[in-house]
Amino acid sequence: MTAPSAATNSNIIGVGVDQELITSVPSHNPTFVARNFTEAEIAYCRAQPSPASSFAARWVGKEAVFKSLGVKSAGAAAVLKDIEILNDDAGVPSVHLHGEAQVKAQERGVANVLISLSHSETIAIAFAQASST
Amino acid sequence: MTAPSAATNSNIIGVGVDQELITSVPSHNPTFVARNFTEAEIAYCRAQPSPASSFAARWVGKEAVFKSLGVKSAGAAAVLKDIEILNDDAGVPSVHLHGEAQVKAQERGVANVLISLSHSETIAIAFAQASST
Amino acid sequence: MTAPSAATNSNIIGVGVDQELITSVPSHNPTFVARNFTEAEIAYCRAQPSPASSFAARWVGKEAVFKSLGVKSAGAAAVLKDIEILNDDAGVPSVHLHGEAQVKAQERGVANVLISLSHSETIAIAFAQASST
Repeated sequence: MTAPSAATNSNIIGVGVDQELITSVPSHNPTFVARNFTEAEIAYCRAQPSPASSFAARWVGKEAVFKSLGVKSAGAAAVLKDIEILNDDAGVPSVHLHGEAQVKAQERGVANVLISLSHSETIAIAFAQASST
Repeated sequence: MTAPSAATNSNIIGVGVDQELITSVPSHNPTFVARNFTEAEIAYCRAQPSPASSFAARWVGKEAVFKSLGVKSAGAAAVLKDIEILNDDAGVPSVHLHGEAQVKAQERGVANVLISLSHSETIAIAFAQASST
Repeated sequence: MTAPSAATNSNIIGVGVDQELITSVPSHNPTFVARNFTEAEIAYCRAQPSPASSFAARWVGKEAVFKSLGVKSAGAAAVLKDIEILNDDAGVPSVHLHGEAQVKAQERGVANVLISLSHSETIAIAFAQASST
């Protein structure tokens, strides 16, 4: 080998897991929803068969993404709306960082965050992985 | 750059998490089992201390692998038997893709899928990670 | 650039997930605690709002790390104390391997293990990822 391939590097910077009882996420509370979810997320969740399950899955998704960034949790609530989780054309959830969350991600060298969500009858769970590419 | 080192690249293409109540997975239903599990998987699960728990863990494992591939979920049921999860000599579960699942993985550039399974008294959970090497 | 960058490789060697009911982890049993947790872990967990939840989260964390190493589970109990999970200055849990766990990790080419922990009212869950850098 005589030439580097810097572009092929894909360092994992952090992982995050979170779970909650669906009934523990106050998605019936308009203040909670408006403070933590974007308009696109709200529209998506309200159109699902079980909006409470979908809000709960996205809520734990945001927490999992936050954990994957590896930053101090003080002030976490302030940035959760800046962690937006939207489905792509194939129905796969993808992470979009805005505002303070985007700044914190850049400080940590995070360029991409993968996410997966799951909800059963009672529990919502999410896994996130932050990487440098 | 004049000589890439493709072999060192390890891009994570997708992650997947899934969980179910063990009692929600109809492993006592022969049609469900025959449609979704390979003969080797069935033999393994039936030899375990709690076959229902083992079937449930593999079921959520297949769903997690499917999510990690990042493809449309329409027709998911059709390919779950093509996602085979067998234990290696060390007892570590490994993913073997066949048929349509293998085709979809290749289309997405996935060469390897790592999996981990867990079941407690009531819940089965799985995490999968698809990568290009 | 005229030299390869082997150091930029970040192969994921294994992933691990584990979960337990918090009430299933006998953290009130001094023998169990002394056998499986380091002094630093014990001090941390006892200082948390819910020591039982914190012990359970670290317990499933150790199991998830063990799974991510991809080694035979025979004798797992012997090495769980060698898998130490401590929080860094930002409150992010980090994995420190000692003794037999460190030897097994080196044999598998594992240089780093990322971990995330979560506990709700009833369940503790952990995800681990072992990589070569």
